Amino acid sequence: MPNRERQWSKALDIPLTVSTLIFLAAYAWPILDPDLSRGWRQACTTAVWATWGLLGIDFGMRLYLAEDRRDFVRRHPLDLAVLILPLLRPLRLLRLITLLTALNRYAGSSLRGKIGVYLTGSVSLIIFVGALAVLDAERGHGGPIQSFGDALWWACTTVTTVGYGDMYPVTATGRLVAVFLMLGGIATVGVVTASFATWLLDQIREEKT
Amino acid sequence: MPNRERQWSKALDIPLTVSTLIFLAAYAWPILDPDLSRGWRQACTTAVWATWGLLGIDFGMRLYLAEDRRDFVRRHPLDLAVLILPLLRPLRLLRLITLLTALNRYAGSSLRGKIGVYLTGSVSLIIFVGALAVLDAERGHGGPIQSFGDALWWACTTVTTVGYGDMYPVTATGRLVAVFLMLGGIATVGVVTASFATWLLDQIREEKT
Amino acid sequence: MPNRERQWSKALDIPLTVSTLIFLAAYAWPILDPDLSRGWRQACTTAVWATWGLLGIDFGMRLYLAEDRRDFVRRHPLDLAVLILPLLRPLRLLRLITLLTALNRYAGSSLRGKIGVYLTGSVSLIIFVGALAVLDAERGHGGPIQSFGDALWWACTTVTTVGYGDMYPVTATGRLVAVFLMLGGIATVGVVTASFATWLLDQIREEKT
Amino acid sequence: MPNRERQWSKALDIPLTVSTLIFLAAYAWPILDPDLSRGWRQACTTAVWATWGLLGIDFGMRLYLAEDRRDFVRRHPLDLAVLILPLLRPLRLLRLITLLTALNRYAGSSLRGKIGVYLTGSVSLIIFVGALAVLDAERGHGGPIQSFGDALWWACTTVTTVGYGDMYPVTATGRLVAVFLMLGGIATVGVVTASFATWLLDQIREEKT
Repeated sequence: MPNRERQWSKALDIPLTVSTLIFLAAYAWPILDPDLSRGWRQACTTAVWATWGLLGIDFGMRLYLAEDRRDFVRRHPLDLAVLILPLLRPLRLLRLITLLTALNRYAGSSLRGKIGVYLTGSVSLIIFVGALAVLDAERGHGGPIQSFGDALWWACTTVTTVGYGDMYPVTATGRLVAVFLMLGGIATVGVVTASFATWLLDQIREEKT
Repeated sequence: MPNRERQWSKALDIPLTVSTLIFLAAYAWPILDPDLSRGWRQACTTAVWATWGLLGIDFGMRLYLAEDRRDFVRRHPLDLAVLILPLLRPLRLLRLITLLTALNRYAGSSLRGKIGVYLTGSVSLIIFVGALAVLDAERGHGGPIQSFGDALWWACTTVTTVGYGDMYPVTATGRLVAVFLMLGGIATVGVVTASFATWLLDQIREEKT
Repeated sequence: MPNRERQWSKALDIPLTVSTLIFLAAYAWPILDPDLSRGWRQACTTAVWATWGLLGIDFGMRLYLAEDRRDFVRRHPLDLAVLILPLLRPLRLLRLITLLTALNRYAGSSLRGKIGVYLTGSVSLIIFVGALAVLDAERGHGGPIQSFGDALWWACTTVTTVGYGDMYPVTATGRLVAVFLMLGGIATVGVVTASFATWLLDQIREEKT
Repeated sequence: MPNRERQWSKALDIPLTVSTLIFLAAYAWPILDPDLSRGWRQACTTAVWATWGLLGIDFGMRLYLAEDRRDFVRRHPLDLAVLILPLLRPLRLLRLITLLTALNRYAGSSLRGKIGVYLTGSVSLIIFVGALAVLDAERGHGGPIQSFGDALWWACTTVTTVGYGDMYPVTATGRLVAVFLMLGGIATVGVVTASFATWLLDQIREEKT
């Protein structure tokens, strides 16, 4: 990373994390409280678009500062996707990946610490936003998922691949969210489960010696 | 591979890929559009058999050019199976494996690139043709799978082993398709998920250093 | 293995395999054909107990010929369990493990060949006898599994952990069979799926070079 | 571990294991027998709190004897959690982890023996207490889980991720128990299944040589 790009990244680090948290709150609030007044709902929509604008400015600036711009775009496909696809409501949530990067900084330096803090945070965030997005898509469409509690429970049974079938999406958008949740969530939960299993085997081996 | 066999393979490469794409279109169209006129339906059936004939000519020619014919048959059991079993409608779809070989050529040279392009393509193709085959078997038999959207959703929940149970096949043919989808799809999705998990762990390790 | 024990094992090899096949037929027939006449049903029961007697003679003889009898019992816990537990109908099926050993002998010498023949055979046998045992336990008890086709389909969705929920056991015996099927089947299907996934990755790596 | 701490641990080893067994019995009895008289129910509640008091004395004593107290707390987060969270009924069951440590001591010295005894014990205990906790939360709340047999069956289908959907929790507490069961159970069952699969592959490889 060239020097000026690094300086810019460092300067906008905290503003971007805060902006993402504001985005998450502005996205979540109208979904969690369906009786929200029209004024607040409007404010949330504005906040969502404002934080998107900030992302655009950041991407443009980093692109401008980069030495090889074509290479910069190729190395940041997710940033670009986040910028281009805000019209599809559930895809906006991809932006929260920046939160994971912030979370990563506060994790300890050992691999186990990283897995403990970083992955548990990731799984929680994935389940939380997956539940939000599916509730947003499903409410009022006749499926079984009609409250946030049900949506959270559905997300948990999905990422562990248990899939009881008491809760399932019925709309096309909800099913799309489910497929994303399956792809990302199953892998992340798989890493957590495998790490726990490895730790368990290590414990057993240790006792032996 | 002896020289003449290689020349033949190279010459028929593009015609066979095109023929397989025509086969896929001719197989999919009558299933996706149940109101297709009798004439078009007939044309699709003809196209399916014509592409099968082309496969037969190709296999025969490669067998003729091979140095050790017994060994050639042993090394290409799938090609033989594709040729012998076209009478069972769902098994015809095994022919699409040639599409995957074509896809493989356009994938990058790194292992990660291969997994990105090749396996994502494979998973998409497996889910797409699994949904087609199950819809073909189930439509009009009283099960819950009656539209292509439902069939696609069912295929996604099956290959990830979530299996909510809102969609499931009820006919013997549909269940046979499901078993094939489970065997092939679970393994392929497993590779993609495991690769993503490995990449995730690498990211965590990299941040550390 | 001492010499006399080996000679005995070799001499009874084929009789025991044949006896196990007779046992499987005598176990399966009354389940697959619920309208079987009382006479034939009696004959099947007799055959089941006769083959059990043969197993007892074999175990006793091998125990008698063994150098260290305490050690012999410890090294063959499954043989002993098969002998002691014939009163629990579903546990009788454990005897079919000898069939797997026979199957193992006909598999090729390469690891891939072993997995191809041996594990595919094991999975098929496990699914087949699991379906038999669950149908035997469930028929006439009000659950959804009432035909052999349904039982086979249920066994397939169980060992792959998809578990749609259109079929599930409701009796205590049926659920016990399900737990056995989950333990044995999931592990064996896991090996087959993992082998397929490894093969897939090898294919991708090979193409590269 | 300093000398005095070790002596204390050794002296309280058997009393703590017995106390945990009493706790398990006192926790399980009122759940398994809903018609238990008020007097016995009171006795069970008293026993639960008395065993908790013993845990508190043990933790306090070990903390007092430890050389570096801050480090002691950091190395025993689970012990602390068990002590602080007894008000949440299902979390009390975390205390049973001490049983697993006791079980570990009776397992053989080989890794395979450890997995055989220790993990099978862990899985059985996890399934048993998961079934208890979910039945405690669900009984009388209109969900499908209303008897201990159903709860056990539900726990088995959950830890194997089969999840038929004939049984599922409907209360918030029951779903919390389910999430714990999924996290702990899936990992432990995964280790057992993977060990069995590895053993199976070893058997196949061995036969070859």
